[in-house]
Amino acid sequence: MPHQLQTGQELYQFIDRLYPICRSITGNGVRDTLAIISEHIPIIIHEVPSGTKAFDWDIPLEWNIKDAWVKNEKGEKIIDFKNSNLHILNYSIPVDKQVSLEELKEHLFTLKEHPDWIPYRTSYHHQKWGFCMAYNQFKKLKDETYHVKIDSTLEPGSMTYGEYFIQGKTDDEVLISTHICHPSLCNDNLSGIAVAASLAEELSKMDLKYSYRFLFIPGTIGAIAWLSRNEAITHRIKHGLVLNLLGDKGSFTYKKSRQGNAEIDKIVELVLAERKADFRLIDYYPYGYDERQFCSPGFNLPVGRLSRTPHGEFPEYHTSADNMNLISPEKLSESVSLIKTIFSVIESNAVYKSLNPKCEPQLGKRGLYEPIGGEKETKDFQMALLWVLNFSDGKHSLLQIAEKSELPFHVIQEAAKALEKADLLMK
Amino acid sequence: MPHQLQTGQELYQFIDRLYPICRSITGNGVRDTLAIISEHIPIIIHEVPSGTKAFDWDIPLEWNIKDAWVKNEKGEKIIDFKNSNLHILNYSIPVDKQVSLEELKEHLFTLKEHPDWIPYRTSYHHQKWGFCMAYNQFKKLKDETYHVKIDSTLEPGSMTYGEYFIQGKTDDEVLISTHICHPSLCNDNLSGIAVAASLAEELSKMDLKYSYRFLFIPGTIGAIAWLSRNEAITHRIKHGLVLNLLGDKGSFTYKKSRQGNAEIDKIVELVLAERKADFRLIDYYPYGYDERQFCSPGFNLPVGRLSRTPHGEFPEYHTSADNMNLISPEKLSESVSLIKTIFSVIESNAVYKSLNPKCEPQLGKRGLYEPIGGEKETKDFQMALLWVLNFSDGKHSLLQIAEKSELPFHVIQEAAKALEKADLLMK
Amino acid sequence: MPHQLQTGQELYQFIDRLYPICRSITGNGVRDTLAIISEHIPIIIHEVPSGTKAFDWDIPLEWNIKDAWVKNEKGEKIIDFKNSNLHILNYSIPVDKQVSLEELKEHLFTLKEHPDWIPYRTSYHHQKWGFCMAYNQFKKLKDETYHVKIDSTLEPGSMTYGEYFIQGKTDDEVLISTHICHPSLCNDNLSGIAVAASLAEELSKMDLKYSYRFLFIPGTIGAIAWLSRNEAITHRIKHGLVLNLLGDKGSFTYKKSRQGNAEIDKIVELVLAERKADFRLIDYYPYGYDERQFCSPGFNLPVGRLSRTPHGEFPEYHTSADNMNLISPEKLSESVSLIKTIFSVIESNAVYKSLNPKCEPQLGKRGLYEPIGGEKETKDFQMALLWVLNFSDGKHSLLQIAEKSELPFHVIQEAAKALEKADLLMK
Repeated sequence: MPHQLQTGQELYQFIDRLYPICRSITGNGVRDTLAIISEHIPIIIHEVPSGTKAFDWDIPLEWNIKDAWVKNEKGEKIIDFKNSNLHILNYSIPVDKQVSLEELKEHLFTLKEHPDWIPYRTSYHHQKWGFCMAYNQFKKLKDETYHVKIDSTLEPGSMTYGEYFIQGKTDDEVLISTHICHPSLCNDNLSGIAVAASLAEELSKMDLKYSYRFLFIPGTIGAIAWLSRNEAITHRIKHGLVLNLLGDKGSFTYKKSRQGNAEIDKIVELVLAERKADFRLIDYYPYGYDERQFCSPGFNLPVGRLSRTPHGEFPEYHTSADNMNLISPEKLSESVSLIKTIFSVIESNAVYKSLNPKCEPQLGKRGLYEPIGGEKETKDFQMALLWVLNFSDGKHSLLQIAEKSELPFHVIQEAAKALEKADLLMK
Repeated sequence: MPHQLQTGQELYQFIDRLYPICRSITGNGVRDTLAIISEHIPIIIHEVPSGTKAFDWDIPLEWNIKDAWVKNEKGEKIIDFKNSNLHILNYSIPVDKQVSLEELKEHLFTLKEHPDWIPYRTSYHHQKWGFCMAYNQFKKLKDETYHVKIDSTLEPGSMTYGEYFIQGKTDDEVLISTHICHPSLCNDNLSGIAVAASLAEELSKMDLKYSYRFLFIPGTIGAIAWLSRNEAITHRIKHGLVLNLLGDKGSFTYKKSRQGNAEIDKIVELVLAERKADFRLIDYYPYGYDERQFCSPGFNLPVGRLSRTPHGEFPEYHTSADNMNLISPEKLSESVSLIKTIFSVIESNAVYKSLNPKCEPQLGKRGLYEPIGGEKETKDFQMALLWVLNFSDGKHSLLQIAEKSELPFHVIQEAAKALEKADLLMK
Repeated sequence: MPHQLQTGQELYQFIDRLYPICRSITGNGVRDTLAIISEHIPIIIHEVPSGTKAFDWDIPLEWNIKDAWVKNEKGEKIIDFKNSNLHILNYSIPVDKQVSLEELKEHLFTLKEHPDWIPYRTSYHHQKWGFCMAYNQFKKLKDETYHVKIDSTLEPGSMTYGEYFIQGKTDDEVLISTHICHPSLCNDNLSGIAVAASLAEELSKMDLKYSYRFLFIPGTIGAIAWLSRNEAITHRIKHGLVLNLLGDKGSFTYKKSRQGNAEIDKIVELVLAERKADFRLIDYYPYGYDERQFCSPGFNLPVGRLSRTPHGEFPEYHTSADNMNLISPEKLSESVSLIKTIFSVIESNAVYKSLNPKCEPQLGKRGLYEPIGGEKETKDFQMALLWVLNFSDGKHSLLQIAEKSELPFHVIQEAAKALEKADLLMK
């Protein structure tokens, strides 16, 4: 049994193990990644055969790669997959031939703005080959003949994803989804994988009202495949979060569900606001990660997305600079902690009904009120008692009462517990 | 027959008479206060016996007090109820004993921030005794034996409140409630009592559409008792105001009803806005005065609260500094005047229907329009005619038309009258 | 066949021809104006006899004028209708008499703030006579006897208006209404007449989904007459614009329909916002131009008003300074262009339904998506494809999707076309 996944340092080391693996939307990189996750949580591994229909899509051929390089006339490897798996255009078909510089250039991808970084590029759905490299190195290429070799296979096989389900008291589900298809990129998305695994490990030990379903899936095709295989149970999903980009030092960004005012949207907003730190709320838009599929109009699930700095807004995004230096144990730990708070609000939010709706009940005789009247200050807890009593009319949830009262949710929650204990409140 | 209660000076003198009385939630102080109000308006006095159930509450024992003091070893009265009735912890049980300084201190209440002021403290529901005093005097207490004497009674009796009902053309009611349970405190709430009495006196001479019910009641328990005895008629209450803290020089503050968008909420907002002076609107929260009971979820009546500076927001609140210097005839008079305007809007607001909804009627031939066209300026009244005609579609009240048009309510009201007279409008 | 009405210069010359004509709400000035419009578009001329009932109104007597002047004792014409038809109080009854200065002054209208300008004044519904003149000239009037002569007729006749109807694929109508009752005033409203005529000329050559109805009518009484004669077909009006004041250099002002959130209101707001130039949106109020009649509560049609600087907000309004210098070919042309864009949005706005609502369809295999993934930039068109797919749930129109996405409407529209062509979308 390995170390746990609870401290920031533990998450960081876990990411360090996963970092070198060359992942893609199919292939052994995904399997190796899921095997390491399995050391911590007993995920079920699904294999979906190539060619399987998933709504408008087909599961693609399986891609695997052993090696890839470009040699100059002297036989020196000027690009070498072994140095960084970002060097390969992800899903490149096999190739082994001599090419002129001119022809080679048609297959090279660089990033002029950051001339020392290798960009990350993919070609899942068009059979191509290519290499990515630093622009500074690209500039030095001489006009000679190159030997390009990509030792990859693109063959019938399967797409692999992992699923971990924790049964709660009810069948109502919270969905947590994170993408596992990116190669050596730390924030995008080993951070999301580590945070999700940590949460799964923690929740598995708890007594829960909701059931929790964790998906470790290839982006887009993985979500589409899962939805097509599980359409019948999507109605159980009451709240959901797509998790990614959770290790950098940026403040949190929450992208609302397509519904826009789902309970998960309100909960995340409240929890972020109570932290008293900067955060951003973004309205739903149909681009980004797998919330695109969960929130497609035929599903329209209450699924939002939680990240730190969103994709495309940090320069290291989709480059070799998204490495172990971009993320930190502290930020990973902070992300886990925030999401735990979100789950605790999900678990405890409820609509209560006051059993004493006509006038206030006498709190004093129940030991719930200060004995000496006339003072100016009234404590949060005592105010929370009054808020919960006044708005527990069967229409307002604790969350809504917390919003209205501007009192911390946990104080509202404690007040509800005390009032329930005093037989003044009923779920 | 005493003087009337119409000018600010008359209200101020009325308060001056009530100021010395030691009131509480029960007892002769309340009876004496109601007797003086009765000199102006024929209120009905209700006596509710101790022990009577009122929802979750019981009417408490009746408290009366004749005298109270603390003597030092020399026999000097170092605290004397006769100097200020705030010296006594309101509802103190009788006591007559020698105590050490240490023991005495457990029963003393002071206010360090305002060392020359006596705080006001109560203990209605826990049988205690105590004294309140200026901190500067408290500091000088010597370590000696003190004789404490409280000549009070806490015995079965009754709780007293006053009610005054003015029958209007309809049984729909406007409720005005003010608390009468505070001892020598002017703004809180002799100001509210005086303003309510003045309004009652004035309305009793008028021809009214609504019936008006004035309650002069002990805070909390009085409202709860009234509601428990009158539950069957609360559906008649269409608008309500809790009045208090109306004599200080602060600007007006209106706390909305729990409904938040009741007609009374809109009316008070409009009237305050039309004054062109500062004011504050506060959303409902379940703390404060008797709106807590009227707006408890089992009643949820359209009752707001009108004050000047709210409780707890002026330093003199609940201290001996809430005296005749804190309030002024001018501010009392201004408060009465504002509420009269509110009542006039309540009385005249109505939904009309244009009898000529297709295109504009020709106002010119009815003498309602300027003969020479082409000028830039159009007077408020002529605009009001058009607004009332265009929006009297059976869905918009005059109040809503005033809000939309940003024209003064009285101009909208005059336009409606003129159009009704010209047979262009019907209620 | 005259020149077309398409360039700003052509509109300006058209206005120049109409400028000298003395128009009013009835009479030959209107007929002459409509005759010139008829040279461009085959409008139908309606004559409504004096005395005809139109809801609460009667069609007035017809007014015509040949000449008018005021002569001093020397026989000099100190006011001469032939110099400017604004000199006459519009609808003045005939008069021919000697008057003292004192009596004359009761019939004179001036504008002290702009002492060199002649104001425009009317008296349609009260039989009066009068003259308008520059204040500087008025000041010089000597105390002598004047000969006033107004060679006008006010007799049974008819009120004239023009109507032009373009049948589209459906009977759903777009109404465009402009007033033709003002004499020599360019912005108010020869600009509106010219812009409407230009639009009518252009639309008549196009293949249209909606039918378009252009009204060239006297203000107020014309709209009332048209509505009273066409009440049965007003339900066909799905969108409408009252056009006027469209030649000055001010930014655009749109006054919303009484409904406030009609499709036309949203469309004009979107089109104005996309221009990236200043504009103003005004909520409906029951004063102004013929939107007052179209939006009277018995009709409440989705008709807004588009102007540049609104009436009364530019100093030249209703004075002799509203002349050919106040308007420009550029601004007229810009107005036409804006309204054409509005019409194109009206024509193409629709609610679609995605034929592939569960997850995203695979755009790549249909050639609708970039082959190389991983890049930061995603083009507007590709984003538009995703927006249209995600929100084409049968509830969101293209207009609403454009608003939500903040993408230009034409890009959204192109995306919808492409998706419809790819069988991914259905109306």
